Amino acid sequence: MSTDRVIRLGMVGGGRDALIGAVHRMAVRLDGRGRLVAGALSSTPDKALASGRDLGLPDDRNYPSWQAMLDAESALPPEERIEAVSIVTPNDSHHPIARAYVDAGFNVILDKPMVHASAQALDLIERVERAGVVLAVTYNYCGYPMVKQARQIVRSGELGEIRKVIVEYNQGWLASKLEQTGHKQASWRTDPARAGLGGAIADIGSHAEHLVSYVTGLEIESICADLTSFVPGRALDDDANLLIRFVGGARGVLIASQVCVGSRNDLRLRVWGDAAGLEWRQHEPDHLLLTSDSGPERVYRRGAQSLGPPASRATRLPPGHPEGFIEAFANVYRNTFDAVRAGAGPRSGPIHDHPDVYDGARGVHFIESAVRSAAEDQRWTDARWTDPRIG
Amino acid sequence: MSTDRVIRLGMVGGGRDALIGAVHRMAVRLDGRGRLVAGALSSTPDKALASGRDLGLPDDRNYPSWQAMLDAESALPPEERIEAVSIVTPNDSHHPIARAYVDAGFNVILDKPMVHASAQALDLIERVERAGVVLAVTYNYCGYPMVKQARQIVRSGELGEIRKVIVEYNQGWLASKLEQTGHKQASWRTDPARAGLGGAIADIGSHAEHLVSYVTGLEIESICADLTSFVPGRALDDDANLLIRFVGGARGVLIASQVCVGSRNDLRLRVWGDAAGLEWRQHEPDHLLLTSDSGPERVYRRGAQSLGPPASRATRLPPGHPEGFIEAFANVYRNTFDAVRAGAGPRSGPIHDHPDVYDGARGVHFIESAVRSAAEDQRWTDARWTDPRIG
Amino acid sequence: MSTDRVIRLGMVGGGRDALIGAVHRMAVRLDGRGRLVAGALSSTPDKALASGRDLGLPDDRNYPSWQAMLDAESALPPEERIEAVSIVTPNDSHHPIARAYVDAGFNVILDKPMVHASAQALDLIERVERAGVVLAVTYNYCGYPMVKQARQIVRSGELGEIRKVIVEYNQGWLASKLEQTGHKQASWRTDPARAGLGGAIADIGSHAEHLVSYVTGLEIESICADLTSFVPGRALDDDANLLIRFVGGARGVLIASQVCVGSRNDLRLRVWGDAAGLEWRQHEPDHLLLTSDSGPERVYRRGAQSLGPPASRATRLPPGHPEGFIEAFANVYRNTFDAVRAGAGPRSGPIHDHPDVYDGARGVHFIESAVRSAAEDQRWTDARWTDPRIG
Amino acid sequence: MSTDRVIRLGMVGGGRDALIGAVHRMAVRLDGRGRLVAGALSSTPDKALASGRDLGLPDDRNYPSWQAMLDAESALPPEERIEAVSIVTPNDSHHPIARAYVDAGFNVILDKPMVHASAQALDLIERVERAGVVLAVTYNYCGYPMVKQARQIVRSGELGEIRKVIVEYNQGWLASKLEQTGHKQASWRTDPARAGLGGAIADIGSHAEHLVSYVTGLEIESICADLTSFVPGRALDDDANLLIRFVGGARGVLIASQVCVGSRNDLRLRVWGDAAGLEWRQHEPDHLLLTSDSGPERVYRRGAQSLGPPASRATRLPPGHPEGFIEAFANVYRNTFDAVRAGAGPRSGPIHDHPDVYDGARGVHFIESAVRSAAEDQRWTDARWTDPRIG
Repeated sequence: MSTDRVIRLGMVGGGRDALIGAVHRMAVRLDGRGRLVAGALSSTPDKALASGRDLGLPDDRNYPSWQAMLDAESALPPEERIEAVSIVTPNDSHHPIARAYVDAGFNVILDKPMVHASAQALDLIERVERAGVVLAVTYNYCGYPMVKQARQIVRSGELGEIRKVIVEYNQGWLASKLEQTGHKQASWRTDPARAGLGGAIADIGSHAEHLVSYVTGLEIESICADLTSFVPGRALDDDANLLIRFVGGARGVLIASQVCVGSRNDLRLRVWGDAAGLEWRQHEPDHLLLTSDSGPERVYRRGAQSLGPPASRATRLPPGHPEGFIEAFANVYRNTFDAVRAGAGPRSGPIHDHPDVYDGARGVHFIESAVRSAAEDQRWTDARWTDPRIG
Repeated sequence: MSTDRVIRLGMVGGGRDALIGAVHRMAVRLDGRGRLVAGALSSTPDKALASGRDLGLPDDRNYPSWQAMLDAESALPPEERIEAVSIVTPNDSHHPIARAYVDAGFNVILDKPMVHASAQALDLIERVERAGVVLAVTYNYCGYPMVKQARQIVRSGELGEIRKVIVEYNQGWLASKLEQTGHKQASWRTDPARAGLGGAIADIGSHAEHLVSYVTGLEIESICADLTSFVPGRALDDDANLLIRFVGGARGVLIASQVCVGSRNDLRLRVWGDAAGLEWRQHEPDHLLLTSDSGPERVYRRGAQSLGPPASRATRLPPGHPEGFIEAFANVYRNTFDAVRAGAGPRSGPIHDHPDVYDGARGVHFIESAVRSAAEDQRWTDARWTDPRIG
Repeated sequence: MSTDRVIRLGMVGGGRDALIGAVHRMAVRLDGRGRLVAGALSSTPDKALASGRDLGLPDDRNYPSWQAMLDAESALPPEERIEAVSIVTPNDSHHPIARAYVDAGFNVILDKPMVHASAQALDLIERVERAGVVLAVTYNYCGYPMVKQARQIVRSGELGEIRKVIVEYNQGWLASKLEQTGHKQASWRTDPARAGLGGAIADIGSHAEHLVSYVTGLEIESICADLTSFVPGRALDDDANLLIRFVGGARGVLIASQVCVGSRNDLRLRVWGDAAGLEWRQHEPDHLLLTSDSGPERVYRRGAQSLGPPASRATRLPPGHPEGFIEAFANVYRNTFDAVRAGAGPRSGPIHDHPDVYDGARGVHFIESAVRSAAEDQRWTDARWTDPRIG
Repeated sequence: MSTDRVIRLGMVGGGRDALIGAVHRMAVRLDGRGRLVAGALSSTPDKALASGRDLGLPDDRNYPSWQAMLDAESALPPEERIEAVSIVTPNDSHHPIARAYVDAGFNVILDKPMVHASAQALDLIERVERAGVVLAVTYNYCGYPMVKQARQIVRSGELGEIRKVIVEYNQGWLASKLEQTGHKQASWRTDPARAGLGGAIADIGSHAEHLVSYVTGLEIESICADLTSFVPGRALDDDANLLIRFVGGARGVLIASQVCVGSRNDLRLRVWGDAAGLEWRQHEPDHLLLTSDSGPERVYRRGAQSLGPPASRATRLPPGHPEGFIEAFANVYRNTFDAVRAGAGPRSGPIHDHPDVYDGARGVHFIESAVRSAAEDQRWTDARWTDPRIG
């Protein structure tokens, strides 16, 4: 921590019993570089207000709705109003809420997937560019120091030319029809109206897509997606298996499932080039394995002196003092706050090392491509994404 | 070991410097239930004879060619002649040699893939059925006790209805153009004339296919195969990624690669049903992990009292005394020798728990289907195999 | 988080470049149940003030010395003054500072080892009991949820009667003469005047002692300690190996070293009873292994529904979302804040599940016993500790 | 395998239901460099003969007693008689049987501990030196390739000067009073008349002692042993915890227990020098971990090209094809057969890399020292062993 100014943050959603809202707040608090000063914590006004009181929000900044917060905060003097808003609502409300805050000149932090459709994503990009604000998407797994180290190793060329990527994200919590039991998370995530086109492919497959892109920089050329709804009566996929062809010839497999009974948020990434390979698994996030055909395997550990700057900067503790999910999440916030503080604008992502609106748009395009492939008899489908910064 | 008669074995191939021949012989010796008494250990007569002398074969049963061995052994009295022959030559010679020995009434042990083409496989089935002999294929990984335990658990219904299978077999030894360095194994395995239609998909993908079939009993309905030759100038695939649909609705992913630098024969199987999941990895073959959404994970260990009969019978040592590859290989031989001793004939596989000619034929059909899918723009391809015992 | 009142906290020590002070602050911030409102962050006034400014402390509560903070805070109205003070200075100042704050009626949080000598510990107990305040000692490893689960399992009798304990705490950072390089942490920790009687045995051996006591409840009867200073010229032990006899007949081995090159804060605990055994390792803190001679091994995971209340309460995230060192540390703070909020007084430890002044005193006695054993030719030494609450 | 002459082997003990006899025979058969041609497989003549028939021994070399085998084999022409005898009986008969065979000029392979008492060990050394034969002791864990690699790394100086050794050998099979259930192995191992002075300390502690000596070359100077019999009514220790001081100043901890419920033959070795550390665990015998304070951890794998000659020679398969307990055991036999074939005599151990009569004598001395320390109130006890080759 330093003398850096503390960022004033508002939050939309994340009220009582909402897991991810609490995670966002812990991530914000951990480093003390941001402070939650306002909130509209539920779409139900009473619940919103009660949740805000739980959190100790002052009454005058504890809002019954996101619209109320937007209006009131906009009316505050610049040096008092919130500087950024975290939107941690179900997917279907991302676009209208984010759009409104962006248009009003607020920086925005959005959960993934960013929006439902590429048209919305492009709309958001346009508005973000017009408003000149920062928009960050909480692809939180890129916040792990050893993921940053993996990225550095790949980008340095140490693996050689990348040939093969296997990324997996397996969960088991939706193996039975949890949505019929009144389980809130399960309900909206399995409802196309709220979750969007994709089930597992959107909810966790999008994390896998971002992780591959972040670490390797590879661009997807085409995909062949086999999406399945194993639980009877479920409208969205709960299991996704994809073959991927990357621009330049690398091949990939992406697996995302929510019916792998007993798998506990099991995210793994393996990448091989023509010279070496690497492996990272979220269950042991402080390790990174490097393999080659000559010499012993190398196990890099978070916090060790041999790591590069991005991993070192994302580290709070020496090796052997485990860091975890919240710390990684907090790294996304920390970098985003840096961008906000610097007024870095729409294209802050690569500079301040946080996922941005373009990453979010690419992720939406990925989900759409996968769903389209699956809908067309699991055929190979062109999945190239046109980066608006280039095109 | 017991008073069981020791089986008299001949071997074709596996001479000096042939790794797999030495493995077969260690597997045979380990339990003392079979004895190598004759051999034609190379296609080069001088090398064959020299190799036989190395092994201490008596001169009169150390043959310059497999034809010479076939003729001479056939002429011996039944109580002296070899009872079975192990054929451990490159793939292209499997069919002619096996055919000849089968027709002469010898039991045959063949390396995988069994033959090059389904027509050869069907021809071999017909001959084996006519001759009434045992034909075993050394899909050796099913010899591991914990694979047998996995099979028992799946078959018992403990996982519920199977939904998802992920099988991987990754190696890195062909990541560079090893075949140009005079490396014998690399040379024939990358040569379509000798290896057949498939590279990685045949050499190790076939092991993965068998492992899935052995453990789950699932039948493949269709596949979508992305086969790649990463090393420039290589005619056969060195990387294979397959999506699989099984009869009944289960989904699968099969990955087999020989360019995953630093991966050391990394065979892994994961299976999930609607009630529980299991995971086995050849690198820790004595363990089997069972997961469910309730209660702790369970780690089964080879040799423990809680294991079922197939795993227990395949075990030589108490838990904590690691068994490995040779022991698993020896289990295939042990069961095959039991079948030979019992005169169990062509359909001995399910009775004596060894891979048989039908498994071998199904494996060839799998390779052909994968290659066909890849050739037709990686399209989904019908891959159903008609079991001649049923049809 | 709930409507619980936020505790006003002061801090002594932990200024610029002090690792452990930053850890304490992250632990406090994580849950938002306490807030740092005052500080005397260094024994050097200028550095203290600069450090406070870094942290955004208001000038009027950013103190140049702990005495100044004590005087000024005592003069504030009760509803404004700090409610607790965290003392994170080198060991030698623990007793005078803690004593003064306790006498003034402040609750105190102290780093371990609590003080230098049993006489000081008894003095502190007397004062704490007289003042009726809470004194917590940050034996942070007991904050891990799976350590709490281990405790519950042992206390439930599931392991049977405890026979054997192996506890290890290995580090490698003092393998060379780091104290000669100006390294601040190394300097005071290897200086008897500041660190006290013990080196590794005090700095990390005391953590190991507490972990055993916390999980098993066993009382040490006698110890035989082999303490060594491997690095030439070092006055205190940097390696400690102890045999332990517990009251009731259990046996133990305690190993603590700071010269195990490449060991990264490697804390492990294994406990066996006559019915089952358990194993926990800080490197994978979310796991707990249970072994028995019948049935498979069981791996318990943090966050799973099958865990008991103490582990569940100490958990913030579902399984598969790794928690780590800071989260465990925060659990100690959270429970201590609960005790402070409840005005639970000196004997709050067992009620609110935090290490208290008696644990601290027992730890000091342990260090003294180990040092005495080592000094007397590594003889077996009576190490029974008389709990003042009983005696 | 090569044209090396096959060694003619006899065996004493190891009949029906004797686990370790079967292990010896598998180890002998694996490489085909020795052949069991004679046996006296039980101390009960009928059982001996029945066991020999099970194994297919010819009637004229299937003996009712070890004396009968000794007489008959001695009467055979040198080129027919057995060249070596494996003695796999309970400990109490090791000395009389080995002595007799040695005196008659046979090479001998003995299970550990070699004999009951140092006087017997010295007697055996004298006789072995007089007879000029090879005597090997099956400290089989030194047969693991990665143990050999560990030895080479330590001996090369890569760890620097050795400071600390932790060796553990934990089992749980004697946690209850198994000897009362008619369990043959448990019965003799817990009977002082048959097992000797030590229980766990002799049966498995001796393996740990040898492993440390083999890898590090360190000489024990003094020990402090806490030996316990946890199971009521058991005469010998079932749990042993030792502090060790090595000549030159290194420190050690040796733990051996047979009451660690659920521990499955869990042998682990850790060694730290002033420059680096290493770790090996029998449960993953193909791995060796090297740690230092700079750079990543290194994981060496059996079969990799980067290994040294001793490890490479002891390897049969490429990496990723697990080898295990039998293979390691076979390495001890292979090297011993090499010594026998070379007529290498009593001092063959260091030349042919097998444990010899001096290692066996040192092991007996170690057990005696530990028992003496425990008997004298667990005091520190001089445990230096005088090597008769030097003294």
